[in-house]
Amino acid sequence: MIVALAGGIGGSKLLAGLARRLPADQLTILGNTGDDIELFGLRICPDLDTITYTLSGHCNPATGWGLRNDSFRCLKEIRRLGGEDWFQLGDRDLATHIFRSWLLGKGVRLSEVTRRICAAWGVRQRLLPMSDSHAPTFLVTDRGRLHLQEYLVREKAKLVVKEVDLSAAVKARLTPEIPDSVQQARAVIVCPSNPLISIGPILAVAGMRELLAKCKATVIAVSPIVANDSLKGPSAKMMRELGYEVSAAGVAAMYRGFVDCLVLDRSDAALASRIEDLGMDAWSTATVMKSEEDKDRLADFILEQL
Amino acid sequence: MIVALAGGIGGSKLLAGLARRLPADQLTILGNTGDDIELFGLRICPDLDTITYTLSGHCNPATGWGLRNDSFRCLKEIRRLGGEDWFQLGDRDLATHIFRSWLLGKGVRLSEVTRRICAAWGVRQRLLPMSDSHAPTFLVTDRGRLHLQEYLVREKAKLVVKEVDLSAAVKARLTPEIPDSVQQARAVIVCPSNPLISIGPILAVAGMRELLAKCKATVIAVSPIVANDSLKGPSAKMMRELGYEVSAAGVAAMYRGFVDCLVLDRSDAALASRIEDLGMDAWSTATVMKSEEDKDRLADFILEQL
Repeated sequence: MIVALAGGIGGSKLLAGLARRLPADQLTILGNTGDDIELFGLRICPDLDTITYTLSGHCNPATGWGLRNDSFRCLKEIRRLGGEDWFQLGDRDLATHIFRSWLLGKGVRLSEVTRRICAAWGVRQRLLPMSDSHAPTFLVTDRGRLHLQEYLVREKAKLVVKEVDLSAAVKARLTPEIPDSVQQARAVIVCPSNPLISIGPILAVAGMRELLAKCKATVIAVSPIVANDSLKGPSAKMMRELGYEVSAAGVAAMYRGFVDCLVLDRSDAALASRIEDLGMDAWSTATVMKSEEDKDRLADFILEQL
Repeated sequence: MIVALAGGIGGSKLLAGLARRLPADQLTILGNTGDDIELFGLRICPDLDTITYTLSGHCNPATGWGLRNDSFRCLKEIRRLGGEDWFQLGDRDLATHIFRSWLLGKGVRLSEVTRRICAAWGVRQRLLPMSDSHAPTFLVTDRGRLHLQEYLVREKAKLVVKEVDLSAAVKARLTPEIPDSVQQARAVIVCPSNPLISIGPILAVAGMRELLAKCKATVIAVSPIVANDSLKGPSAKMMRELGYEVSAAGVAAMYRGFVDCLVLDRSDAALASRIEDLGMDAWSTATVMKSEEDKDRLADFILEQL
């Protein structure tokens, strides 16, 4: 059993490779729900949905999120009604949010709702939300405190981040499925997702870091920072603004204490000794995933080490 | 000021004519909400929406309900997720339900929600739901007790109706806007909607019949039964199954006590004396509305009598 911690777009790339290489019942994913947002009374779980749509083969390849061939006709009418429309909600995608919100409203746990959504989309891997509680991430910026999605989507990640507020995750509880999965795993893979806003909230849930630090599985993290920059998304910008070193070594420092091996890009091989000084192995390979072959190759590289 | 009581498709035909003939601020509509249903946590108000879409000019002319040029992509995915899909929810139309459910969830009254939806669609007439409470109509049939929409849409009105259960409407309360409107009206028009399931729920709300019986306005009802049949929809079938006489005289008997004048079709002119025996005037004219001109002509006929 492999357990993978993942955010949305970046994490899903490696998950796609892992899913093609592992039997479905041997991959369990702990998904970030710190990016969840409630809009018009609907609970949106962007990272869980990106993972579900990616693993089902229905994700929009042009964006990395949402469904293929979706339309935005409902959102246009929500705008007419005076609702905020900065968060893209596709017509097909909306079904997921409506269905989820309906079940949550009836008291069904998010873990069970997610299981049903995955089953409907034919996803056979197990996708576990990091918590059944709503634990949204907020960012303190130079223009005030914003929900993560307001920062990422509405403000296009342009504001200066002063603090990542994970207080809701800290108060959230792990689901019973999570310790069970981690304890049964022979390896835990931390996908190359944003360490601050994708992996950070999962780690912030009470007991999660300790669970990973104490488990018998090998914990392997893939650096989302290559050549001192993020390949996509605001990881590097946010790390810089918050005073972290923008490098694979900086990522290693953030994961110190529970990660056994850091996978870094070949171009960063010179950082290996600094990473080893932090008490973890450093494995270098090609980590940039532009094609499906790249994803498979990185998955193979990791699985071969186990 | 004219106040019109209306259900959905049938009532909206006359409303379209009245709206073209009257200044917008002189027409107030009391809409049936007994046909409201909650689906997937969304509050659907089919009659209010049919009225809103009709008066805004955006109603689908082919069906008489829903929006023009709508699509059903979200509903198809709801079906994938295992949700019931017998109730047609268009992608554009869904925005109304999402927006309404969101505001209701925040504690906004349905009357205010409806006002905002009408404003967004450019409807300048006043549309008042019969109550701010959810008061769904149920039908006792030969196959058990069903929500009105289950009977009408899912079962295509094929079951035998044994009883119309308006107990929720009986327990509901009129909004404060309704007595105000009726007391200021010079005429109240009961549109040619189904007397049992469109007008019946409005009349069942505690105090409504008394309000109409005692108001100083002339109360004029248009018979939805012409030549012993309903033009469209299950009015005649339901009246027959419940033991009512299927005729304009049968309609007059149902409205006895608060209606002053019944407008009946010319082809039913022979029933006039029986209607007059019930203590109301009988006005005969062409009441069948197939074209927009028919709607205007019927509106003109009624308004000319006032």
